[in-house]
Amino acid sequence: MKSEELKNVRGSIDYGGKDAIIRNFISKTLQETFEKYGYSPLETSILCYYDILALKYDEDNDILKEIYKVTDQGNRNLALRYDLTVPFAKYIASNTNIKLPYKRYEIGKVFRDGPIKKGRTREFVQCDIDSVGIEGQMIEAELISIFVEGYRRLGIDIIIKYNNRKLMNGIIEICNIDNDKTSQVITIIDKIEKLSYEEIKLEFDKIGIKENQIETIMKYLKMEFNELNKVIKNVSNIKLKEGLNEIEKLNRYIKDLNLTEYVRFSPTLARGQEYYTGTIFEVYVANGSIKSSIGGGGRYDNMIGEFINDGKKYPAVGISFGLDVIFEILREKQTYLYNTEVYIIPRENNTLALKIADELRKNEVKVDIEMNNLKLKKALSIINEKKVPIVIILGENEIKENKIIIKDMKNNFQILEDMKDYMETIQEILSIGEIKYNILNPGGNKTALIKGCEYTNNQKKLINKMIMDKYSQVEQVGFLSNIINRLEMAGGEFCMNATRCAIYEYSKENKEKVELSVSGTNKKLIGRKLNDNKVEVKLDIGKNIEDLIETKNDFTCVKIDGILIAILDEEKSKKYIQKLRENEETTKNELKQLMITEIASEEKAIGIMLLEKESGKIKINPIVWVKEIDTVFYETACGSGSLGIAIYNYLKNKDKKIELIQPSGYSINIELEGNKNYIKNAIISGIIEEE
Amino acid sequence: MKSEELKNVRGSIDYGGKDAIIRNFISKTLQETFEKYGYSPLETSILCYYDILALKYDEDNDILKEIYKVTDQGNRNLALRYDLTVPFAKYIASNTNIKLPYKRYEIGKVFRDGPIKKGRTREFVQCDIDSVGIEGQMIEAELISIFVEGYRRLGIDIIIKYNNRKLMNGIIEICNIDNDKTSQVITIIDKIEKLSYEEIKLEFDKIGIKENQIETIMKYLKMEFNELNKVIKNVSNIKLKEGLNEIEKLNRYIKDLNLTEYVRFSPTLARGQEYYTGTIFEVYVANGSIKSSIGGGGRYDNMIGEFINDGKKYPAVGISFGLDVIFEILREKQTYLYNTEVYIIPRENNTLALKIADELRKNEVKVDIEMNNLKLKKALSIINEKKVPIVIILGENEIKENKIIIKDMKNNFQILEDMKDYMETIQEILSIGEIKYNILNPGGNKTALIKGCEYTNNQKKLINKMIMDKYSQVEQVGFLSNIINRLEMAGGEFCMNATRCAIYEYSKENKEKVELSVSGTNKKLIGRKLNDNKVEVKLDIGKNIEDLIETKNDFTCVKIDGILIAILDEEKSKKYIQKLRENEETTKNELKQLMITEIASEEKAIGIMLLEKESGKIKINPIVWVKEIDTVFYETACGSGSLGIAIYNYLKNKDKKIELIQPSGYSINIELEGNKNYIKNAIISGIIEEE
Repeated sequence: MKSEELKNVRGSIDYGGKDAIIRNFISKTLQETFEKYGYSPLETSILCYYDILALKYDEDNDILKEIYKVTDQGNRNLALRYDLTVPFAKYIASNTNIKLPYKRYEIGKVFRDGPIKKGRTREFVQCDIDSVGIEGQMIEAELISIFVEGYRRLGIDIIIKYNNRKLMNGIIEICNIDNDKTSQVITIIDKIEKLSYEEIKLEFDKIGIKENQIETIMKYLKMEFNELNKVIKNVSNIKLKEGLNEIEKLNRYIKDLNLTEYVRFSPTLARGQEYYTGTIFEVYVANGSIKSSIGGGGRYDNMIGEFINDGKKYPAVGISFGLDVIFEILREKQTYLYNTEVYIIPRENNTLALKIADELRKNEVKVDIEMNNLKLKKALSIINEKKVPIVIILGENEIKENKIIIKDMKNNFQILEDMKDYMETIQEILSIGEIKYNILNPGGNKTALIKGCEYTNNQKKLINKMIMDKYSQVEQVGFLSNIINRLEMAGGEFCMNATRCAIYEYSKENKEKVELSVSGTNKKLIGRKLNDNKVEVKLDIGKNIEDLIETKNDFTCVKIDGILIAILDEEKSKKYIQKLRENEETTKNELKQLMITEIASEEKAIGIMLLEKESGKIKINPIVWVKEIDTVFYETACGSGSLGIAIYNYLKNKDKKIELIQPSGYSINIELEGNKNYIKNAIISGIIEEE
Repeated sequence: MKSEELKNVRGSIDYGGKDAIIRNFISKTLQETFEKYGYSPLETSILCYYDILALKYDEDNDILKEIYKVTDQGNRNLALRYDLTVPFAKYIASNTNIKLPYKRYEIGKVFRDGPIKKGRTREFVQCDIDSVGIEGQMIEAELISIFVEGYRRLGIDIIIKYNNRKLMNGIIEICNIDNDKTSQVITIIDKIEKLSYEEIKLEFDKIGIKENQIETIMKYLKMEFNELNKVIKNVSNIKLKEGLNEIEKLNRYIKDLNLTEYVRFSPTLARGQEYYTGTIFEVYVANGSIKSSIGGGGRYDNMIGEFINDGKKYPAVGISFGLDVIFEILREKQTYLYNTEVYIIPRENNTLALKIADELRKNEVKVDIEMNNLKLKKALSIINEKKVPIVIILGENEIKENKIIIKDMKNNFQILEDMKDYMETIQEILSIGEIKYNILNPGGNKTALIKGCEYTNNQKKLINKMIMDKYSQVEQVGFLSNIINRLEMAGGEFCMNATRCAIYEYSKENKEKVELSVSGTNKKLIGRKLNDNKVEVKLDIGKNIEDLIETKNDFTCVKIDGILIAILDEEKSKKYIQKLRENEETTKNELKQLMITEIASEEKAIGIMLLEKESGKIKINPIVWVKEIDTVFYETACGSGSLGIAIYNYLKNKDKKIELIQPSGYSINIELEGNKNYIKNAIISGIIEEE
């Protein structure tokens, strides 16, 4: 057989891959919702006797044509169910031990040999919940709650239109329309929202409704409930009275349960013709992006009784979720649901791969393993297509050192992790999700700014590590709150350059000045973006100069918020600058030792500034140690350090303005405001470039 | 239509109630398991072209007879799928964008018009997982893990038999059996475990296998793998070599992944005839209570390729869980899964009921509401049938006092709870589950002993409250460990009578003496049940009498482990005994005040003993205050108090033996051992009766 012959029956679809994952998510979510409301599952058979399915219809009804007939070896007259309501009635009829009230849900395939269009197949899933044996509006209010909760959990904003069939029938009666025209009139009413007034009039006219009747009926159907209630409350028509009463009761529940925002009374809502006897519902997407309803239902107090025909009453009400249209919505929203969370590439360490997979699965992580010993590149390309968020690579060399490679595919990060820590790291990566960030260059001292600062400390440390590993030039990582203007550094310190970067970012939204709070300081900072891509920040100081400065051994120390700036004069700096150029690593450690022994400060960060002259200007060499994350950097620019030097310079030379060359070659300009020994504030400015 | 005509098609079953809940639990559990292993869902259509289903079979094959044929309006030649493997192959063939390896699971209905018996219907659910595109044993080891994990989560202990078809074919070849007899021989081998040796021989004989061939083949099939491997390793037969090699590889994975206890190599396992090409599995219930297999599968490297026939290779391996037989097992095990956890009876407080229900559902509790305003008795009888564990009753009087009634239906307890605390209490009750307890009467001072002491403090307090509310005569609640001999009182205190009760309980298992640890003391206690239902306990004291006794105002205080016994002599007791008889509540509070002001002790419990004479014996009146749970009881018997009095009596009269009449009228006897001022230990004995 050629493979093109191995095709599906027209109107039957196979759902695989992402589609099947979405469909499973919908069923599971709805199932959980229904069970929380006390509905129990029912699984009825797909095969039915044709006679049962045909029972309710005339021989020439279209529905009968759409029933698939089945033949078996015993030549029975069988068929496939076309809905879940007939099997529900059959179940109640044939299980006499069922006590009412009975609340059930069923999610299952039904078959209709009808026209096909998008979202309409011949073999499709219905998702029904019904209760039988309960009268009154309390259960109807519960069904509204279930609609709200079910769609909320699916991430779809809805509006539920509701009406009452008794009310509608009453209105038709009081307009003196003949009883035998009722169902035709309802069919027309159902079209009111779709057609123009002229078109509707024409339709009414066709079935012989008089001008004044049309006007009366149209008048009533345009009213809000309260108005309608006032106008027709005293008209003596039983259906009208009952209908109004039921709507009032339902409205009270809706109000008490805070459901008002989800519902809308819709007097033109008719919902088919037969079978409904009271409240009816129809659910629409709130933003109207989809015109057809995505769910519906109502009360049908007579149908099951007529079907079973045992003389008993079976008051019933039910709703149905449109699984196929929900599927189309979630599919278009690109709702992504990971089937596999971690993919392990064993590189021939098969047993280890199986063991790590088992360990992860014990921690509820979904794991798959590459088992064809593919080349790494090929394996990764497959994973990329599958959209797996995390990959573990068991490289031979890494394993020898008790390490494994963890790739965060969503963010395109990679970490070399100790074998003993992989579980924690993987769970952190899964909990972090997708990270949005921007890398800025504030004249050297490149800074990564993460959008969002609502991460735990462990998450922040991991993000810091991943960013630093990926971008070797990035010297620090900050987190920007999405809610307020706030910058938090990974180490909790205060950083002037990062502050200027944060102002740059926030000024994208609020063009004027930006007021900002920053970790490591209690002060509010104010800054703004200037025209030439420079960003300035104003720092409130408000202190006498002698309170800011302290001498510690060879160092003149200036206390800036969150960091102690320790300045070594040009003469004393020479030795260390020389050493730095010869061996940066050893020298940084030597300076860290000096910070511990000679400077000894409680601040979260300490920075030693080595000064030198360059073409008449002062050039700085900042070595900064952030205690919390224990990093020592020879920074390519340092804003706080520059400010410290400006204060030191003012003490020495009484110059309020200074330009300082950063190791990157860029300048930072400082201007101090105040008088005599009192410094009121400082304005720090310099260029910022996006990477 | 009469209701008896609304019946199911023969071989089609509707699953409702508990059955549907069990079936949902099975699907959900397996689905979660499969997804943890990287298998993605597939939902293929039920309707298929008949030709595709018939493709692999001769026209007169029995399988074809069992296919249900379907007719549609277009007179297409349709049918219902009879398994999930053909639709799987069809899906691969018609979706050329699927990259191999492809791992999928499908849980869905299939239809076979065949014979019916228990656990075999015509419309049933198959539950398959398969991978295509992976060779080798790593994936086979993964499938064994999935069997183990899947059945573990379903609560079924299994043993997986495995074999290899290459090995089996190899053995048949080296026995020089004609190739055209191979499949007949395999059919006979498959019966070896069911038939006697004579019967098997007869079957072989029938198809012309010679005596010596039969002996050789039977010899091989009885060997353990290692023996078989040794004997035939050097025989030059390719199938044999490959089979042995594959089993060895699989064995290594099984060993490394600690799966040995779940598997058994079974050289006679054949599993059908065609289609399998390598490893095969069959799963059995470990205790053998069900003879037929409950799952199975194997490698079938050629089948999909032959089906699609596009010249490509489709190595495949899959397993299948027998959903229907698993359902029968869980059903018989009476595995109970609650569909509804809390049932609210509104007593006309409908809105409040809906609100409480919503609140509970937000906390993931499954809630149903009585909506027909039934009489309380009728409503409770319905709930009893539904086996709902918790009932909330919104009684009018209770609501007025901001209280609700919570009934723990599993344990038949009832609490009147503050409205603000209901959520916590309900979650505690759900977490506690079923409580087993026994109420004993140690000569008054009735004690409830709960089996198990691994409860949290909150759970203990709740259980204490529920027991005390239910049994007004019970004065205290203790918890007995199921693991060691240990008694923990709800208040953490030490209680002599409860200790005797605990010894009574534990001595049901270990007849001789019982060694016990008890809350409130570090000492081990030894006790035993005597012949006349008396229980004695030996308490190690080891102290001089002056170290035990202290005078505090009017009281002679004796420090027993965990409780301070404060004795008032007969003369001074008179006043309080009089008052107690007049107004017990006020007097208990007055005595509690005395304990706080005049006795002032750090002990977890304080007991005041009021003494009086009764027919020449001493009668005691014990008022005991347990601080942790803040209860003051006029106890009907007090073991610790009796011991305190015995010590006090020894100090006064040098009598080592004393009989003390308890308020209940029963006696407790104390015998002290030691010499002079030194008391070595005390033996406390008295009657214990089961309630």
